[in-house]
Amino acid sequence: MPKLSAKGGNMPASPIRKLVPYSTAAKAAGKHVYHLNIGQPDIATPQVALDAVRNLDRKVIEYSDSDGFSSYRKGLAEYYTKVGIPVSPADIMVTTGGSEALIIGFMTAMDPGDEVIIPEPFYANYNGFATMGGITVVPITAHIEDGFALPPVEEFEKRITARSKAILICNPGNPTGSLYSRQELEQLAEICVRHDLFLFADEVYREFCYDGATPFSCMNLAGAEQHVIMVDSVSKRYSMCGARVGAMVTRNREFMSTSMKFAQARLSPPTFGQIAGEAALQTPQSYFDAVAAEYVHRRDVLVDGLNAIPGVICPKPAGAFYAMARLPIDSSDGFCQWMLEDFTMDNETVMMAPGTGFYSTPGAGLNEVRVAYVLKVDDLRRAITIIEAALKVYPGRLHC
Amino acid sequence: MPKLSAKGGNMPASPIRKLVPYSTAAKAAGKHVYHLNIGQPDIATPQVALDAVRNLDRKVIEYSDSDGFSSYRKGLAEYYTKVGIPVSPADIMVTTGGSEALIIGFMTAMDPGDEVIIPEPFYANYNGFATMGGITVVPITAHIEDGFALPPVEEFEKRITARSKAILICNPGNPTGSLYSRQELEQLAEICVRHDLFLFADEVYREFCYDGATPFSCMNLAGAEQHVIMVDSVSKRYSMCGARVGAMVTRNREFMSTSMKFAQARLSPPTFGQIAGEAALQTPQSYFDAVAAEYVHRRDVLVDGLNAIPGVICPKPAGAFYAMARLPIDSSDGFCQWMLEDFTMDNETVMMAPGTGFYSTPGAGLNEVRVAYVLKVDDLRRAITIIEAALKVYPGRLHC
Repeated sequence: MPKLSAKGGNMPASPIRKLVPYSTAAKAAGKHVYHLNIGQPDIATPQVALDAVRNLDRKVIEYSDSDGFSSYRKGLAEYYTKVGIPVSPADIMVTTGGSEALIIGFMTAMDPGDEVIIPEPFYANYNGFATMGGITVVPITAHIEDGFALPPVEEFEKRITARSKAILICNPGNPTGSLYSRQELEQLAEICVRHDLFLFADEVYREFCYDGATPFSCMNLAGAEQHVIMVDSVSKRYSMCGARVGAMVTRNREFMSTSMKFAQARLSPPTFGQIAGEAALQTPQSYFDAVAAEYVHRRDVLVDGLNAIPGVICPKPAGAFYAMARLPIDSSDGFCQWMLEDFTMDNETVMMAPGTGFYSTPGAGLNEVRVAYVLKVDDLRRAITIIEAALKVYPGRLHC
Repeated sequence: MPKLSAKGGNMPASPIRKLVPYSTAAKAAGKHVYHLNIGQPDIATPQVALDAVRNLDRKVIEYSDSDGFSSYRKGLAEYYTKVGIPVSPADIMVTTGGSEALIIGFMTAMDPGDEVIIPEPFYANYNGFATMGGITVVPITAHIEDGFALPPVEEFEKRITARSKAILICNPGNPTGSLYSRQELEQLAEICVRHDLFLFADEVYREFCYDGATPFSCMNLAGAEQHVIMVDSVSKRYSMCGARVGAMVTRNREFMSTSMKFAQARLSPPTFGQIAGEAALQTPQSYFDAVAAEYVHRRDVLVDGLNAIPGVICPKPAGAFYAMARLPIDSSDGFCQWMLEDFTMDNETVMMAPGTGFYSTPGAGLNEVRVAYVLKVDDLRRAITIIEAALKVYPGRLHC
């Protein structure tokens, strides 16, 4: 048999997928599993988006332009301008999810052997996108004690080498839920300008900021216009992950023009998803208000509940719908697997994402888990009770 | 400004995109343009597929599994079995168009510096997918005089080096419309087995075979089961290019398992498109019969019409909906641009794809164009009249 690529061997397996056989077995054994492991919200997609698809009046489902339907790009420019990010349709390329925006953006910016600096814990699939391009991820550890604040700029500067090409941040952050301040971002921009680096800003959780906080977009970093590549998606905003529609947004025309060559090779982003995405731009503010209120309630129940468990630390996230929690355990991979395989409370258990999958530094995240608060409050309360009971009997419990 | 990647610089521009500014200008000047340049059929998408989307009953547009909805994979396995390719759902990964099947397949098989051998002329975007992976395309020229038959196996063997990892064919072929015989394919399989190469088989035009010809799928090459990676798509079969749904099909489990890591990084193929794709499996045979009859009529009008022009050679395609034609011209790029920019017949002109874009060998295809017969017969007749008139006055006409 022909040998597969080394690249394929290097591709990281998802930290959650490793647990799937155990959750499947648990469910097959009749155990109920509370899924706090994934970012698939249970929130309904806006009616206006579903209706647009239901009222489809096309006879031929044709390709769109490679950068998306021009009417959609125009609508997106209006949306961004409305949320305080003044851009034109020419600054926007519609992509197949935020994933593709990152894949194309990485390939436009970086060659094999180049380096991207990312504060960790970070969204695990950034590793996969980097591996696809032969790009090295250079992590900087953020700490749970600081609520996963952006590490000091000196830490970034220390890691800059001749191969450094970009810094990538996620704001508001998956998996931390932390929201970077304007001042922190301005410091990052300054480094990027001084060292000629791109600044990739994954801002797909923009609408998920709580307690009156307003996100500051990297697109508004004065002086860094040619450096900033914003990644966006309809997946979380409108709870339509399956639409596979995102966007790459940048005022750097040369960057956009090169990215377009990658976009043209794959022809076009999905037509149906773009129809839903364009209609979703008409989603009323009341939808977002209701969703935010629901997530704040869930977050408070989850974070307060977890922090009430002896030995557990869980900083309160300012945005997104994830929280990282430190548990008194020896191994998050071991604990999450044990919860599915060996633990049960009234025939129920909880699935979480092991923290290790969100760190590049070996050994980091061993006693952390990511919890997605994508379930209803009653289910979250029950899940917390189960986690508390499990920690009492987990064989690898730490007593410190 | 930060420097872009060398990879981005290496990305080929599409041979057709270069002409877009000229066609835009022509249209802006009020000229009617007959588009024979693209593979976007005017055929209606099957009603059953459109209805499935219109009758959408989901409240949340969720991710599917990374390899596609299991019900769809099951349906696809039945479809393949019905067309004589017995596979199981485990042999199928649903992708975001055939494009993504090639991108993921290439990355699974090949590392930067590895080589893929492709008979030319070939679908121009293969170049882009190869460039994304840092892979070198090694062309073998097929000739219009032989109707673009598969080059002799000796020609393949001559080009095999220590870096050769795969052979890629498109059957029925874009841009040639040629259909390889079982015997030709068995010879290719033999080389692949002997030299430990993968055989990528782009079979997206399976349903477009004419004059009673039956396509032989590479999936049925006995002894090469671990070598063959089939690429498929709903784009042409059901005239729904915009659905962005395709498939990678292989019986090589290790290959599939590595490809799944790439698929998981980008989460899932489009949900709406899969709903349409699954419903499209119920398309009645009468749809395909009507479509094939229409294309045969168009092909005959086009090919007979072109061959009747002095100095023009156009082999009759056995499949797909493209034909390569040799014209008495100095440069296909120059001629196609001149048609848009400088020529007009009763305020009309024709857009074609320059042959050069389908060859890797420098200078090849200079006097060839690709013509897609995706317009109605009356329009094709008119387009041929325009091409004939243009060739009489084109300044770069060859008289040989």
